[in-house]
Amino acid sequence: MNSIGRRFRVSIFGESHGELIGVTLDGVPAGIELSEQDFEKDILRRKSGAKGTTPRIEADAPMIVSGVYEGHTTGAPLTVAFRNTNTHSSDYSLFSAMPRPGHADLTAALKWDDCQDPRGGGHFSGRLTLPIVAAGVVAKKVLADATILDDTPVSEDGVEARIVELGGIPAPSRQLSSFQQPAQSPASPQPEGLYPEWKQAIDAAINEGDSLGAVIECIVHTIDPGYGEPFWDSIESAISHAVFSIPGVRGIEFGDGFGAARMKGSEHNDPIGPGGRPTKNGAGGINGGITNGAPIVFRVAFKPTASIRKAQHTFNFATGQEDVLEVPGRHDVCFALRAPVVVEAMTAIVLADMALLQA
Amino acid sequence: MNSIGRRFRVSIFGESHGELIGVTLDGVPAGIELSEQDFEKDILRRKSGAKGTTPRIEADAPMIVSGVYEGHTTGAPLTVAFRNTNTHSSDYSLFSAMPRPGHADLTAALKWDDCQDPRGGGHFSGRLTLPIVAAGVVAKKVLADATILDDTPVSEDGVEARIVELGGIPAPSRQLSSFQQPAQSPASPQPEGLYPEWKQAIDAAINEGDSLGAVIECIVHTIDPGYGEPFWDSIESAISHAVFSIPGVRGIEFGDGFGAARMKGSEHNDPIGPGGRPTKNGAGGINGGITNGAPIVFRVAFKPTASIRKAQHTFNFATGQEDVLEVPGRHDVCFALRAPVVVEAMTAIVLADMALLQA
Amino acid sequence: MNSIGRRFRVSIFGESHGELIGVTLDGVPAGIELSEQDFEKDILRRKSGAKGTTPRIEADAPMIVSGVYEGHTTGAPLTVAFRNTNTHSSDYSLFSAMPRPGHADLTAALKWDDCQDPRGGGHFSGRLTLPIVAAGVVAKKVLADATILDDTPVSEDGVEARIVELGGIPAPSRQLSSFQQPAQSPASPQPEGLYPEWKQAIDAAINEGDSLGAVIECIVHTIDPGYGEPFWDSIESAISHAVFSIPGVRGIEFGDGFGAARMKGSEHNDPIGPGGRPTKNGAGGINGGITNGAPIVFRVAFKPTASIRKAQHTFNFATGQEDVLEVPGRHDVCFALRAPVVVEAMTAIVLADMALLQA
Amino acid sequence: MNSIGRRFRVSIFGESHGELIGVTLDGVPAGIELSEQDFEKDILRRKSGAKGTTPRIEADAPMIVSGVYEGHTTGAPLTVAFRNTNTHSSDYSLFSAMPRPGHADLTAALKWDDCQDPRGGGHFSGRLTLPIVAAGVVAKKVLADATILDDTPVSEDGVEARIVELGGIPAPSRQLSSFQQPAQSPASPQPEGLYPEWKQAIDAAINEGDSLGAVIECIVHTIDPGYGEPFWDSIESAISHAVFSIPGVRGIEFGDGFGAARMKGSEHNDPIGPGGRPTKNGAGGINGGITNGAPIVFRVAFKPTASIRKAQHTFNFATGQEDVLEVPGRHDVCFALRAPVVVEAMTAIVLADMALLQA
Repeated sequence: MNSIGRRFRVSIFGESHGELIGVTLDGVPAGIELSEQDFEKDILRRKSGAKGTTPRIEADAPMIVSGVYEGHTTGAPLTVAFRNTNTHSSDYSLFSAMPRPGHADLTAALKWDDCQDPRGGGHFSGRLTLPIVAAGVVAKKVLADATILDDTPVSEDGVEARIVELGGIPAPSRQLSSFQQPAQSPASPQPEGLYPEWKQAIDAAINEGDSLGAVIECIVHTIDPGYGEPFWDSIESAISHAVFSIPGVRGIEFGDGFGAARMKGSEHNDPIGPGGRPTKNGAGGINGGITNGAPIVFRVAFKPTASIRKAQHTFNFATGQEDVLEVPGRHDVCFALRAPVVVEAMTAIVLADMALLQA
Repeated sequence: MNSIGRRFRVSIFGESHGELIGVTLDGVPAGIELSEQDFEKDILRRKSGAKGTTPRIEADAPMIVSGVYEGHTTGAPLTVAFRNTNTHSSDYSLFSAMPRPGHADLTAALKWDDCQDPRGGGHFSGRLTLPIVAAGVVAKKVLADATILDDTPVSEDGVEARIVELGGIPAPSRQLSSFQQPAQSPASPQPEGLYPEWKQAIDAAINEGDSLGAVIECIVHTIDPGYGEPFWDSIESAISHAVFSIPGVRGIEFGDGFGAARMKGSEHNDPIGPGGRPTKNGAGGINGGITNGAPIVFRVAFKPTASIRKAQHTFNFATGQEDVLEVPGRHDVCFALRAPVVVEAMTAIVLADMALLQA
Repeated sequence: MNSIGRRFRVSIFGESHGELIGVTLDGVPAGIELSEQDFEKDILRRKSGAKGTTPRIEADAPMIVSGVYEGHTTGAPLTVAFRNTNTHSSDYSLFSAMPRPGHADLTAALKWDDCQDPRGGGHFSGRLTLPIVAAGVVAKKVLADATILDDTPVSEDGVEARIVELGGIPAPSRQLSSFQQPAQSPASPQPEGLYPEWKQAIDAAINEGDSLGAVIECIVHTIDPGYGEPFWDSIESAISHAVFSIPGVRGIEFGDGFGAARMKGSEHNDPIGPGGRPTKNGAGGINGGITNGAPIVFRVAFKPTASIRKAQHTFNFATGQEDVLEVPGRHDVCFALRAPVVVEAMTAIVLADMALLQA
Repeated sequence: MNSIGRRFRVSIFGESHGELIGVTLDGVPAGIELSEQDFEKDILRRKSGAKGTTPRIEADAPMIVSGVYEGHTTGAPLTVAFRNTNTHSSDYSLFSAMPRPGHADLTAALKWDDCQDPRGGGHFSGRLTLPIVAAGVVAKKVLADATILDDTPVSEDGVEARIVELGGIPAPSRQLSSFQQPAQSPASPQPEGLYPEWKQAIDAAINEGDSLGAVIECIVHTIDPGYGEPFWDSIESAISHAVFSIPGVRGIEFGDGFGAARMKGSEHNDPIGPGGRPTKNGAGGINGGITNGAPIVFRVAFKPTASIRKAQHTFNFATGQEDVLEVPGRHDVCFALRAPVVVEAMTAIVLADMALLQA
């Protein structure tokens, strides 16, 4: 279904080249201050236009069409819509006959019996992460008002994601984050903040007509213990569910992650110190599916952008022959550059739902 | 919540040392042949008693208490219950004062205000994976009856998980699975099928009083295209949600997984061949959150068993002092040895729900 | 929450005097022909302007903003929006201080801590039944494509609601509907079709500054057996849940309804004839919560419009005194005149969800 | 599905003549005192054996099999099971060929393709209201701990249902309940409390081999304002959904109910007095789907017991002929005599879910 959440429910709608895209939030508590300006900062972090991102630039101006009155939320469903303006639909006519490798062109056609909107990827487009970012802005505000056990709310800046590896190159200063060593690097590596090695990799990929992947790390700096449920709604279950909804995600790991499979219990277990606080954070802040009060830490693997200029083999359904495709149009070389704020939004959406269920 | 699924819903109940544990399945189609014998094979694969597993041996005899009449499912809720018999509750009294590092002892106490059942981990126990395996047996039968697009049902043996790395040592013959190279190794490496290198690692860990982790790979060999939804209910979202409900999972990756983040688009994209079939399987059978007809492939990282004999630092709430704990009792050295069938069950549960929603 | 349905999910948003109101439909099958013209007939039946209805006339022009491409549904979320144009918000400023008896003015303020949008009833307004009617149009099309057991789909005109009592005056020809005596009277008693006795009652109420209630009967003429579930999702549970979401509903009864409580078993039970078909329809087409193949028949009690010109006692929160209110503004004398198509929409929404869950 | 609730979820399982029936409650807060004795009072009120009820007498001894530890709830799923002991399954073999008029025999067979458990009505049996009563006991305890706005919890005795009409005969002292005139008559008219007119009607029905219906009124005496949501989760939507899950319910009405459809606005509207409290209760305590602080009042129509000794026409599928059936076996003459506590349980279940969602 196109919604997530039991108490704070997020539903998105729209297509890349349709008239409107948007999101409806249900269960937002009444009385939260909210204006269209509040969305600016996070929407800007998702914006394209810099090196390595698509030249399709949209105004991305949020319109709050319901659920806000005189500057605060009302308690009724809150809908935020965006117009699509800068669309070049002719770019995409080709892909009905020749599906792009790595894309949903073919699976959408199979699933929906060739009825899908093919323009710009339709509902499968990364453009739909824009309303998700808008939902995240509201979710962060909900979190900042909520506490469940220790009266330690997640602050509005408390969910922080950043790129820690790009094109296979780790951030020079990268350290496995822990609550002892709080993240120092820029939350959202806008191009001006890119490491020189990453800029070089991007330039090389542009020249080759190829694309790059990345790993994003997300930390929830301060969070009460007690979020999550044993089985079915473990905190990892809920976060991974939301994060794998972001197009292009290939993996997720918490705390020591896949590394934990190669460790011994005596290495991976976090000793428990005074007050019951763990003295390291190999568990990523989670035991038994439930937050332990240490920061939540996880990493997400993003694949390289599927649409590349370089020639690829595909099947031409018009001719019934194998064929070669060089994807035209405007694409991100590394769409993960724009994704940290989307990962944050997904995380905040999940935690806001849990916070309201337990508040 | 303690349930998952919209059309095929699984709810578990019980505690490690309570009288009964069990599972209620809602939405099981009427007319599927089912008897208590049908559970034997998968329950046996989860059983303990071999090298590296706990000596706590339970009869694990399933009792079908509702939903089956004259050898077939009725359409009404189907409940399977198990008695707990071989319980040593005194083993656990210690951990209320001194929580075990890496365990839910502390988070359960915080979340539930010290009201949780502490005996054997209570509801957080890995013992609850037994009813999940039972649910998986039914889910596999549901899947074998269902098709959504191409009339290619997932056969009862079609969901196959096996250990591909143990204690950091890859299976000697390990190859990244693809639909071109179907898995050859034993589906469930029961101890007799363990590679010699793995046996040595297990023996060493036993001697040290330590524990080991592992990586399990799961393949769904034949599956129709069209399972999954864009956003929120992508196939990866649904599978990861279920898999992270298994105690001790630290990460999951699909297809090329974290490796995809280091590849270029021209390397990771799967070329499309005749009939629209991909010619390799870096996507793990999934594009845009929807199955493409190639096998689903994913890997799951299991942490080492948290309970170890080796001394660990913890906090003693009775004395208010830091203290040292050597966990007594009966534990798996590597509980992942028993987990492949649990991963299969979770996968089958998710796919059965999707199959019935679309059938 | 502001959504209903597991497989065909309907979510509404908007306020009476906001910029847009609308509905998002999730789970609509791909390939259904749909254009903005398809909404005209049902929207017209809900329209105001006739005797007994409010003079606030809105264009009510539907805008399909997502989920339709080249004249058919795509499978992605389908959003229909409407602009509010003819709003007189100053009419409502009064009611923050002096809540209208019979209205949500006070409960909304209590629930949402005075943050609700008070203009025109905000999200509580009957105006929100407009997107519900739009959802019903799509639901009727889904139903016309779906069969579950007998291959007897519910035709697009197969869900039919009409007023059978107005202001306490039964329709002259009123007969308890049964499948033996199909409904003959106009499906939606537009004012031109009003019985003379009803017109007189309406005129009298207008003169007195008072308002009238009504009873609406809904029949689903042809429907397969097998819709509904034992217990929690009985067909009566699902229909009543949706129908009580319509503002102003005070009761619902199926088949013989409250009359059944005064009958003996030998009177109320429906004898079973050849082929297992009941020979009368006291059960309203439902046994054990499940359709039996006879028409579904139920009646809904609508209260009189709460907003009346006649003086009423209320409390003035500004003065802290009891006070007298004569509600100004534009209101329906009998809003139930516009409600039959809303009851149909709710019924179709519920049945479409069940049809898709079982199809 | 066989569950209801988003935060306090109730799932039932079992068949009339199976080994066990039971209920799993998910989302019960930790720390509520609960023992098997707590169920006695309400289970006794549902028990049979008195005049007008079936002579099938069961021990109805509850077994708490999970979710309770040392006398309080743990926070984990709480399962209560009951053994079926006094079963005469041979009574029912007849009805596979000759379905009983007014029963689910035929619809269950159609829906589940003749795979249903036919013994004693299987999962459709009124026996399943026993675990519902058990769920209600826990729900009442949850409610007694919860407040949402005014700090006025619903006390454990605060949800009260009683028969107000039996066999068409109103209780002599019956008055439309309001918060000004609290209910005085016995909450659950056990046979010793039956009015003489009702006893006569029951005796007559026994002699004729026929059955009787009844109307049950339920009042929630003290409840905070603010329960319920506009649209889809109005308090009437939620209560009616649960109440129509009780086998044999034909109608429900709130406050003035169907009478409101015959009133004018000036008659039905409740004037608002000091402090914003309504001065009468025609709305049944609900405006705009949300509680206003006055008692919730609603009435439920129960049909006469379907199984009667008197000869009825049915169809004999074995012979392919119309036939006559005199239902043998043990049945309630008026099962509604045992239903008040079931109506209370359903109401408490719904309110507990809403209380926890908002707490």
